[in-house]
Amino acid sequence: MALIKKPVTGMKDIMPDEMQIRDYVMGVIKETYRAFGFTPIETPCMENIANLSSKQGGENEKLIFKVLKRGEKLNLKTAECEADLVDNGLRYDLTVPLCRYYANHANDLPNPFKALQMGNVWRADRPQRGRYRQFMQCDIDIIGEPSNLAEIELILATTGTLGKLGFKNFEIRINERRILKAMAAYSGFQEADYDTVFIILDKMDKIGLSGVAEELVKAGFLQESVDKYLALFEGVEKADDGVAYLARELGEYLDADVVQNMQEISASVTSTKAAEFELVFDPTLVRGMSYYTGTIFEIAIPEFGGSCGGGGRYDKMVGNFIGKDVPACGFSIGFERIIMLLMESGFQIPQQPKKTAYLIEKGYPGDKLAGVIARAQEARKDGQQVLVVRMNKNKKFQKEQLAREGYEEVIEFFNRD
Amino acid sequence: MALIKKPVTGMKDIMPDEMQIRDYVMGVIKETYRAFGFTPIETPCMENIANLSSKQGGENEKLIFKVLKRGEKLNLKTAECEADLVDNGLRYDLTVPLCRYYANHANDLPNPFKALQMGNVWRADRPQRGRYRQFMQCDIDIIGEPSNLAEIELILATTGTLGKLGFKNFEIRINERRILKAMAAYSGFQEADYDTVFIILDKMDKIGLSGVAEELVKAGFLQESVDKYLALFEGVEKADDGVAYLARELGEYLDADVVQNMQEISASVTSTKAAEFELVFDPTLVRGMSYYTGTIFEIAIPEFGGSCGGGGRYDKMVGNFIGKDVPACGFSIGFERIIMLLMESGFQIPQQPKKTAYLIEKGYPGDKLAGVIARAQEARKDGQQVLVVRMNKNKKFQKEQLAREGYEEVIEFFNRD
Repeated sequence: MALIKKPVTGMKDIMPDEMQIRDYVMGVIKETYRAFGFTPIETPCMENIANLSSKQGGENEKLIFKVLKRGEKLNLKTAECEADLVDNGLRYDLTVPLCRYYANHANDLPNPFKALQMGNVWRADRPQRGRYRQFMQCDIDIIGEPSNLAEIELILATTGTLGKLGFKNFEIRINERRILKAMAAYSGFQEADYDTVFIILDKMDKIGLSGVAEELVKAGFLQESVDKYLALFEGVEKADDGVAYLARELGEYLDADVVQNMQEISASVTSTKAAEFELVFDPTLVRGMSYYTGTIFEIAIPEFGGSCGGGGRYDKMVGNFIGKDVPACGFSIGFERIIMLLMESGFQIPQQPKKTAYLIEKGYPGDKLAGVIARAQEARKDGQQVLVVRMNKNKKFQKEQLAREGYEEVIEFFNRD
Repeated sequence: MALIKKPVTGMKDIMPDEMQIRDYVMGVIKETYRAFGFTPIETPCMENIANLSSKQGGENEKLIFKVLKRGEKLNLKTAECEADLVDNGLRYDLTVPLCRYYANHANDLPNPFKALQMGNVWRADRPQRGRYRQFMQCDIDIIGEPSNLAEIELILATTGTLGKLGFKNFEIRINERRILKAMAAYSGFQEADYDTVFIILDKMDKIGLSGVAEELVKAGFLQESVDKYLALFEGVEKADDGVAYLARELGEYLDADVVQNMQEISASVTSTKAAEFELVFDPTLVRGMSYYTGTIFEIAIPEFGGSCGGGGRYDKMVGNFIGKDVPACGFSIGFERIIMLLMESGFQIPQQPKKTAYLIEKGYPGDKLAGVIARAQEARKDGQQVLVVRMNKNKKFQKEQLAREGYEEVIEFFNRD
C-alpha cells in the first residue's frame, strides 16, 4: 500500500522559513519571561480523560482527540459507548494541565509559582484558513499571588515580549468580572441571567451598542433594564476615567476594592511599561471561559482584527484538584496569530550569523576533503554558518537557490585545485 | 468527581530545575546544528495510522497510542476490530514523519535537505525507571546527499554538540551494513540467515565473543562458519586498522568502495573534530532497525552504560513514499539520556543572569508600588532577572527558598519606607 504524503487532516507541516521565526519568537518569549522570574515547565500532551471532561474547558471539551485504551483494558465486545474505549485524551489547552501540575507538586514549587508553558494543544475544530487542529499555545501563569502584583507583572512581561518582537500601538483591554456583574446588577438583571446577558454583550464588537440592545430585548429582558445598562456603557465612553465614572454611578453595587485594584494596575503598568501600547478599560470585554473570577484582559493588535491573546484571574480552578482555593492569574499569548502576523509582514530575524556555502566538485579527492572540512570547522568556531555540499551539475541554479536561503558567499572547491 | 492529580501512567511532569537544563541543551543543539546549515522543521504529533503501520517502525509499531475516529466516522456498532475505530496515531519516532514530510515538500526544500527535528514521541512501553511513554527525540538528517559528506557532517555536528555540553572521552562507534554482510558471507552464512546472525551478534556487549559463538551454534549454524566468523572479530581487535585488516581478509567479499568510504570518514572526522572523542570502528555494531543500508553509528558515553544515540544511512526509506529512492543519512541524539546524565552530574548552566528578588511587605501602599516596579523594569533592561513578590509572614523561610532558586540578592520594601 502506498504511504500517505499529506499530514493528517487539519494539521500542518512547518516549513524551514516559518520554523526559524517560531524558534526566534520562542527564544524572545523565554528570555523576557525569565527576566520576570517565570520558570518554564512542561506537562505530558495526554491527560486523563476525566480531567479533560470536567466542564472546565467549556466548548473545547467537545473537540477532544481521544486516545484508545490499550491491551487488556480495551474490550471491543463489551464496549457500549466511547467512554468504554478511551482512558486518555490529547489536551485542548494548557490551563487544565497546569492546575493538575500545581496540585501534584505544590509542595516542591516556589510560592508564588510563576510558570511559563509553551506546548502544542489539539482541538478537532472544523479546518479553516489559519486554524489548525494542532497548534502551539503559550501560557504564563502566577499561582499563589492574591494581589494585583500578578496582573501587573503578567501585563508588563507580555507587553514587553510583544514590544521586543516589534509590535507597536497595540492595546491591552482590561475589565473585571465583578464590574461586569455590578453593572448587570445595577441595571436590574437577575443573577441567574448574567451568563445570557454577557453572551449578548460579548457581541458588541460585531453588532454594536444598538445591536446588543435589540438582542437583549428580544431575549425577553425589561426595556428599562436594557436602557439603564446601555446608558452605563455610553457613560464610560464619554468619561475620562471609565472606572471612576462607574464607581460613582454604581455606588454600593461596586466594591471599593475592585475600583482601587483596577486603578493600581493601571497606574503601575502605565508608568513602567517597556513597550508602546495603551492599557484601556473596556467594560464590554467578557472573555468566554466561565472560570474567570476577577480581572480579565485581552491583547488587541491593530494589524489583526480579533484578539491576539488574553487571560485573567481564576481563583477557583486549582481548588477543583486540591479541594482548597488558590489564587491564580494567567495570560495566554496567541502564538500562532503572532507568527502569522510576523510572516505576513516579512519579518526579518535580527543578528543572523554570516552564511557561507562551500561547493565541492564531484570527484573531489577524498584525501583533500579533510582540508575543506577543517576550514569549515574554523569558520564555525568564529560563529559563522557554513554549509558544505556537493556541487550540482546545474551550478547556476544551485547558487540561486543558496542565495534564496541566505547564503551570500559561495566558495567553490574544484578537483584541479 | 475529584480530579486526578497524577500525570497519565508512564508520563511525567517536568519540574523547573530539569526544564531549565532541557531548554539550555535544546539551545546548544539548535545553535550548533545551525552552524552546519541544518534547518529546524516540525511535523504534527499525529500521523495517519497507515504510515505508522507500514513495517518501517519495527517493534515500535506494537507500541502505538491510537487516536479514536471522531463524529460520523466512528461507528461502534459496526466496528469489529481496532482498525475500524482509529484513523490516526501518535508518532513513535521522527524518521517516518521526516520521510513523509520530505515526500510532501521535496520541491520546496533545498537539495541536499539538512533537517533538525526536536519533538516528543510516544511509545506504550512498560513503564520503568528513566523510561517514559512520552519522550523527546532529537533527530538530524541529511536527505539527498549520496556521498560520505553526510556522515562526516553528521558526526562532526553531533560530537561538537556533545563537546559544548561538557562531554569528554566518549566514543562514536561506526560500522557498515555492507561490512556486516561481507563478514557473514565470507564465513559461509546464507543471506536468508543474516538477520538471525546479526540479532545474535548484537548481544556481544552482554554475552561476549564466546557467548555469541555458543548461541550461533545452538541456532543450528555450522561450527566451521562460526569459527571463521569469530576469527574475523578477533582479527579486527588485534589489528591497528580494523577496516584495512578486513579489506585484506575478506578480499572480493568486500567492495573496495566501502573500504575507501570508511577510511575517508575516519580521516576527515579525526583531523577536524571539535570535541574530545574517539571514532572507533566496531564490527559488532548492528543497530536494530532493518531500514539501514550503509554506515551505522552509535554514541557511547563512559558515564552511561548503553548507547546515547545513534543512526546511519537509510537510502531506501524515502522511496516508500515517492516510489523513487533518495539517499538519506541521519543521527538521533539520546536527548533524555543526556538530560539524565547532566542532571545526575549536577550540571550548572553557564552564564546565568544575575537574579534579584524584591520582597514587598503586605499593605505596601498601591501608589508607591509603581516605583518598585519601575526599578525592577530598569534592572531587567540591564539583563537582570528580577522577581517581585509579596513578603511572606515567614520571611526567613521565604529567603531560604529564594536562595535555593538562585536569588542571591534580596531587596525588601517596607510600608514605612
